[in-house]
Amino acid sequence: MIKKMLHINGMSKTVIAEPDTLLSDVVREQLKLTGTKVGCGQGQCGCCSVILDGKVVRSCITKMKRVEDGARVTTIEGIGTPDNLHALQMAWTVHGGAQCGFCTPGFIVSAKALLDQNNKPSRQQVRDWFQKHRNACRCTGYKPLVNAVMDAARVVRGEITLKDLAFKLPEDGRIWGTAYPRPTAVAKVTGTTDYGADLGLKMPAGTLRLALVQAKVSHARILSIDTTQAAKMPGVAKVITHKDIKGKNRITGLITFATNKGDGWDRPILCDDKVFQFGDAIAIVAADTEENARAAAEKVVVKIEELPAYMSAPAAMAEDAMEIHPGTPNIYYEQKIAKGGESQPLMKSAAHVVENEYYLQRQPHLTMEPDVGLAYFDEEGRLSIHSKSIGIYLHHAMICPGLGIEPEKLRIVQNPAGGTFGYKFSPTMEALLGVAAIATGKPVTLKYDYFQHITYTGKRSPFFIKLKYGADKDGKILAMESDWIVDHGPYSEFGDLLTVRGAQFIGAGYGIPSIRGRGQTVCTNHAWGSAFRAYGSPQSFLASESLIDDLAEKMGMDPLELRYKNVYRPGATTPTGQTPEVYSFPEMFDKLRPLYQAALKKAKAESTPEKKKGVGISLGIYGCGLDGPDGSEISVELTPDGVVLAGSWEDHGQGADIGALGTCHEALRPLKLSPEKIRLLMNDTAMAPNSGPSGGSRQQVMTGNAIKNGCEMLLNAMRKKDGAYRTYEEMKAENIPIKYSGKWTASMCTPCDANAQGSPFPVYMYGVFMAEVTVDAQSGKTQVDKYTVMADVGKINNKLAVDGQIYGGVAQGIGLALSEDFEDIKKHTNLASCGLPYVNDIPDAFEIHYFENPREHGPFGAAGVGELPLTSSHVAVVNAIKNATGVRITHLPALPEKVLAGLKASPKKSK
Amino acid sequence: MIKKMLHINGMSKTVIAEPDTLLSDVVREQLKLTGTKVGCGQGQCGCCSVILDGKVVRSCITKMKRVEDGARVTTIEGIGTPDNLHALQMAWTVHGGAQCGFCTPGFIVSAKALLDQNNKPSRQQVRDWFQKHRNACRCTGYKPLVNAVMDAARVVRGEITLKDLAFKLPEDGRIWGTAYPRPTAVAKVTGTTDYGADLGLKMPAGTLRLALVQAKVSHARILSIDTTQAAKMPGVAKVITHKDIKGKNRITGLITFATNKGDGWDRPILCDDKVFQFGDAIAIVAADTEENARAAAEKVVVKIEELPAYMSAPAAMAEDAMEIHPGTPNIYYEQKIAKGGESQPLMKSAAHVVENEYYLQRQPHLTMEPDVGLAYFDEEGRLSIHSKSIGIYLHHAMICPGLGIEPEKLRIVQNPAGGTFGYKFSPTMEALLGVAAIATGKPVTLKYDYFQHITYTGKRSPFFIKLKYGADKDGKILAMESDWIVDHGPYSEFGDLLTVRGAQFIGAGYGIPSIRGRGQTVCTNHAWGSAFRAYGSPQSFLASESLIDDLAEKMGMDPLELRYKNVYRPGATTPTGQTPEVYSFPEMFDKLRPLYQAALKKAKAESTPEKKKGVGISLGIYGCGLDGPDGSEISVELTPDGVVLAGSWEDHGQGADIGALGTCHEALRPLKLSPEKIRLLMNDTAMAPNSGPSGGSRQQVMTGNAIKNGCEMLLNAMRKKDGAYRTYEEMKAENIPIKYSGKWTASMCTPCDANAQGSPFPVYMYGVFMAEVTVDAQSGKTQVDKYTVMADVGKINNKLAVDGQIYGGVAQGIGLALSEDFEDIKKHTNLASCGLPYVNDIPDAFEIHYFENPREHGPFGAAGVGELPLTSSHVAVVNAIKNATGVRITHLPALPEKVLAGLKASPKKSK
Repeated sequence: MIKKMLHINGMSKTVIAEPDTLLSDVVREQLKLTGTKVGCGQGQCGCCSVILDGKVVRSCITKMKRVEDGARVTTIEGIGTPDNLHALQMAWTVHGGAQCGFCTPGFIVSAKALLDQNNKPSRQQVRDWFQKHRNACRCTGYKPLVNAVMDAARVVRGEITLKDLAFKLPEDGRIWGTAYPRPTAVAKVTGTTDYGADLGLKMPAGTLRLALVQAKVSHARILSIDTTQAAKMPGVAKVITHKDIKGKNRITGLITFATNKGDGWDRPILCDDKVFQFGDAIAIVAADTEENARAAAEKVVVKIEELPAYMSAPAAMAEDAMEIHPGTPNIYYEQKIAKGGESQPLMKSAAHVVENEYYLQRQPHLTMEPDVGLAYFDEEGRLSIHSKSIGIYLHHAMICPGLGIEPEKLRIVQNPAGGTFGYKFSPTMEALLGVAAIATGKPVTLKYDYFQHITYTGKRSPFFIKLKYGADKDGKILAMESDWIVDHGPYSEFGDLLTVRGAQFIGAGYGIPSIRGRGQTVCTNHAWGSAFRAYGSPQSFLASESLIDDLAEKMGMDPLELRYKNVYRPGATTPTGQTPEVYSFPEMFDKLRPLYQAALKKAKAESTPEKKKGVGISLGIYGCGLDGPDGSEISVELTPDGVVLAGSWEDHGQGADIGALGTCHEALRPLKLSPEKIRLLMNDTAMAPNSGPSGGSRQQVMTGNAIKNGCEMLLNAMRKKDGAYRTYEEMKAENIPIKYSGKWTASMCTPCDANAQGSPFPVYMYGVFMAEVTVDAQSGKTQVDKYTVMADVGKINNKLAVDGQIYGGVAQGIGLALSEDFEDIKKHTNLASCGLPYVNDIPDAFEIHYFENPREHGPFGAAGVGELPLTSSHVAVVNAIKNATGVRITHLPALPEKVLAGLKASPKKSK
Repeated sequence: MIKKMLHINGMSKTVIAEPDTLLSDVVREQLKLTGTKVGCGQGQCGCCSVILDGKVVRSCITKMKRVEDGARVTTIEGIGTPDNLHALQMAWTVHGGAQCGFCTPGFIVSAKALLDQNNKPSRQQVRDWFQKHRNACRCTGYKPLVNAVMDAARVVRGEITLKDLAFKLPEDGRIWGTAYPRPTAVAKVTGTTDYGADLGLKMPAGTLRLALVQAKVSHARILSIDTTQAAKMPGVAKVITHKDIKGKNRITGLITFATNKGDGWDRPILCDDKVFQFGDAIAIVAADTEENARAAAEKVVVKIEELPAYMSAPAAMAEDAMEIHPGTPNIYYEQKIAKGGESQPLMKSAAHVVENEYYLQRQPHLTMEPDVGLAYFDEEGRLSIHSKSIGIYLHHAMICPGLGIEPEKLRIVQNPAGGTFGYKFSPTMEALLGVAAIATGKPVTLKYDYFQHITYTGKRSPFFIKLKYGADKDGKILAMESDWIVDHGPYSEFGDLLTVRGAQFIGAGYGIPSIRGRGQTVCTNHAWGSAFRAYGSPQSFLASESLIDDLAEKMGMDPLELRYKNVYRPGATTPTGQTPEVYSFPEMFDKLRPLYQAALKKAKAESTPEKKKGVGISLGIYGCGLDGPDGSEISVELTPDGVVLAGSWEDHGQGADIGALGTCHEALRPLKLSPEKIRLLMNDTAMAPNSGPSGGSRQQVMTGNAIKNGCEMLLNAMRKKDGAYRTYEEMKAENIPIKYSGKWTASMCTPCDANAQGSPFPVYMYGVFMAEVTVDAQSGKTQVDKYTVMADVGKINNKLAVDGQIYGGVAQGIGLALSEDFEDIKKHTNLASCGLPYVNDIPDAFEIHYFENPREHGPFGAAGVGELPLTSSHVAVVNAIKNATGVRITHLPALPEKVLAGLKASPKKSK
């Protein structure tokens, strides 16, 4: 042990720690200054940034023996407090700098050190500082953060006051449509939000810490599991295997479609007979400390017979491939699409036919916060599982039979989540936590390190797509033929639904009268397919939005004009035959046209043989909801203090808080409540009704409508004859109920049929994307110089949240286009190797134009937003590379070596 | 487990805890908001106060199941922060409200709730609030706290600003002699000081928690110790008994005098053959949690043969009493005093002779913080023990042989201490911690609950005193005969030295020419005798300052005038034959006389048969230092940032920080350093030289002189020819040493000889005390209405610290006079039953008058201060009771029933 006197946040503190202990562990685990977050644990994300003797350091890679006695350490807790925000913290709230908020303390600490030495930085200096200090953000696309630093610097320089910077409520008190900061912002910018790991550290003494014994191969038969040695290791309370599980030991995939050849009971909680993918959990060690648990897990001996691992769909589809789940074919679901007349005759007669093959990679979510959770039995004996779940009721249903407990004895709670982007639509560790709590009878916590987080959570499923367009001489697309294969990994959950998305979004945006195609869902041994923002559409649009550029090129037509000719207008229908609820594209393209033409002109003027510049566009669409008559439920209750709104609008970081608050506040405007009077309770199956999961941009529409409905009932009950409203006390005095259940169902929707025809969504989001890029001819590296988005997400509830979703979603699109992948399970195991975009990878020149067409079925006219920016923002980049270089990248990501290879293969084609 | 959403310090927090877990444990152990302190754990001290939904609650008796979901909890961390102090926190710093600081968060939190509902309270309303909420303080005597609240309220009302309230550095930058707030104040008022229990909570994972197996009887032979069952209990790492100790298993009492019949090796670390007192440690259980350790400790089976317990000196002195430590007589030390000619002839011829017998009780220290510590092996393999030690080098010597390790392998560190008042002059748990760390090889922590803290730490040793004065017809005391018996409990440490104190202070203040007497130190089975503020003098003055009142009464003379006649004037010597260094008493009494006469007049006027009023006075003296040529050493080192001052001026809470800082700052004034540039390093044997222990008001004189000496050497080295001073860089460039060892020895002193003659102290403190009381004739209860102190502590270093010492010391004197005791080990086990004075027990009318006679041997003229206010402040109260009622209480405390019995016995005598 070493004893050091450190000045922590200005106060002298004696710290006793092992010399090799990390500063982050001392700060978080010993001092419980949990404002400092640990993301990657490898110095690649900056979440753990602290200021050490004036310099920003990543505390997760700083050992205590390197910290000088007497050193000065500043953590987020030392920058400012909720009652006394620092200018940076205030700026972060008013610029929407904190979405999930997990990177926020690290960014603010880092920015503080910058402003301490330079209080008038340029935007680029701010960006270079964050780049240098590896401050990574996965939510915001960085621009709001740079905006925040620039404004905070003005306060530091005394040009404006903190009060000037603060958000001002409009005179009418209305927050709908404003940039009202989200209610969780102050907690996030001050580091006082307890994420799962923080909560784990704050559990009662005696809480057991879990470690997993995991598969080191991708496909195997298990011969034996020997826990003898592990059970004797120091601090071990229990070693748990499948034998300890009383239930079915399976997580059900909740099969959606009857034609699915599997039954959904394919995913073990703890492997019994087989290992299906790398990382599969085989045993759990529960011990007094995480260190002891991990050490003991190493001592569990698992004997296996390794089997052939099918690491992509083609391998698993081969004739001689064995069934990964014996009894279920590896190709376990097929979805046809048949819209309009037969396509074949049209293709034959078409003036222009283009076709190509595409592959969209296994995109990793790369959240800043690794997966984490805890479990315990509550005062009513319910097994209570806290996780990052964005589908608390969904997961309840998926894991309950596997655990073998009665549904009423299971409670799921969502912790504040440091980003999910969809991976938490899957149960990850919920069932493992439940098993361990049942087996030990003790509270338990489980925390993945970043390696585990990447290798043992779901990923975006790759699509292999063949696509063909037939168009008339004017470019009007007459027919489309598609074939898509979905590599869904070993577990079935929603694999069928994902496959349907191909039918819904390949070719979406254009009123193509004839469509024929087929999608297949394939079981493989790579990472299981999980939800990811814009689920199924980035794959779809990679094909249809690349191919339309090729069609334009073939026709010698401008790609914008070709799209303009084909986009939805009255009379057109979607690929599933649905009539669009609004027709936003013509006005978007009209607005984009001059910008696009100027960009093209600029690119042409500035392009050089070394630095090739180009412009690409794409359109994107996504539906708000689960297929068919989706719905939601909330409750709204009048209290002496205001109102409690309860439901399950789970927060990834997207802004469930402000979404729910803004909608509820608008619905209750006659009461003139200040926003603080609305308390949100959105994360606990024991306390809140089922509003469904937070996926598919469904919550603002589904739950938004349910909120509106519930609030209307409450208002009706409160309204007196004279039009005034009863107080809480008056309601009680008159015995009028104070709690109302608000419900809404998209009864106007129908699910897609066997030919993928139907009206699955009540509301859609529409967008057009334009990327301006520079490709370095020497390296093949692409830099996005500027990005422009045209977006129609209906009426905007909260400007900061919507801006933030678009900035952040497009940043993920840029990453998808250029760098992100999880294919090589040996290499793609950290943020950097997985291709996470840092600040200088995302343009600061970034414009969004809104087209607020009100939606009939959206509450107060709103649609959703989250999925839209990742539908096809990557394709604009890919198309821009083509425009710059002549190289058509069909298999993402467009890594420099691929672009370089293209340049070498066809130097003629390159501009 | 229950899950609750609480608004903690304004932020929503999910809390998961057992229903019966205490709110204090959730706040401290789970959330690590360690600003909330736990003192008594029984709701009697208010250290754990938090605001729960607007009301002050004691969190140590508030179970989580009683905390509503959604409740609002405010802890000290939510009141203000170091950068953003609340008015109460600022006021606490400028009024010296935080001495040890352990009660401070609770007081400030409580006061915040008061000001929230009443921002213009009267002083009495403030006092009643603290009384009602059981906010107890053992350091300050409460008046500074009431002052602080009154000033904070002015800020809250907007009458003054926070800046107005803040301390302003004088223009010349000098802090010596000012009310500069102590450097640890901000940490204390914000709850950021880590006391031992806080540090224990912040130890690395894997730290073992200890629990003791303790004796339940006071004297026994141990037959067997069976640890089998305990070792199998959950979480247990090891059960440690005396067999595991490699060293002598004894704490040495460091025998001071050759004539001591013991050898000092009488106190076992862990009992082997015998139990010597209730609570003696027999075994230690080391486990993962304190709860598990305590549960396992219950399972250790100790078989004993109970022996007769000698619970007071007379019992142990009986002819047939067995030797408690076989081989050493129970009366193990004797100290004679013989000054001047024989006393007997003088007594015979004296005009007036008075005599009486007195008993001063086993006063408990009643610190707010229970004893606590931790141990680990440092990076150099040194066993490092952190405790509340106020004698880190002393304890090093006392425990090292018992542990059986090399001295250079032992390191003692003092944690911030929540009050000691002397009990930590004894090793308490240091050796136990060391034994456990050695036996387990792991970091360990040990925390006593308040029962353990009271029953198993040392106490003030009772004296049984017979005293006789002979005076001439004018009242001039000619001779004194004394006999005093010291009940020192079972362990010898400093029992001989304490006995010498009787010789030094019985009759001190008066130049009595002839003294004869004898003191005896007796071993008993009650609590071991430990140091306590004013060590040995409250016992001495109870006799000599009561008896002089009786002499005055007998002579019909005013007690003030009788004292005035006898006090030290040039030519007089102390009982040990030393010439006083200053003669302060005459001017003090001259100053007191009109106040005293007015008080007498007022008492007489206001006294009624039901409420009897009276006035009492006393004088007190104490020496600064250990006997004879005491000395000290520090080091002072120039750094690029300022200066580091290192030594072992340990802090009880008395203000070692400001003592050292003020002296060093004054000594270095030519450098014009701002105070923050002086860093203090006062608590670690591995890093700071031996300045000796913090006892006997020695540090300001001994270490103060050493600081002055070291600083002078540094200044000499830094001084250039032109009188300017070199910078750090210049010193380095010129290769001039930058670190100096400052030393000082009281070479003018001689220890007392066999007749107690000598000049033991270089500097003394002088005081006169006046108490005005009301005795309720119905109940016998005494209330002190007003208190006045005349004090000469030399030149004052820091006004806040000196005021604070006097207020607090007198409050302990009032408690000593009226309520405090630790005699009945079944009953006297908590703060309330031990008679701790609460705010309304201590008068708000409290005046101090200073006489700053500079001391030749004090640095910059300063003496010490800490012991003075408890030398005889209790006797003024006792004399006031006599004055009010005619009842002479000779055996303290003057409980209501004793006074009532006196009233009933001699109703005539009562006024």
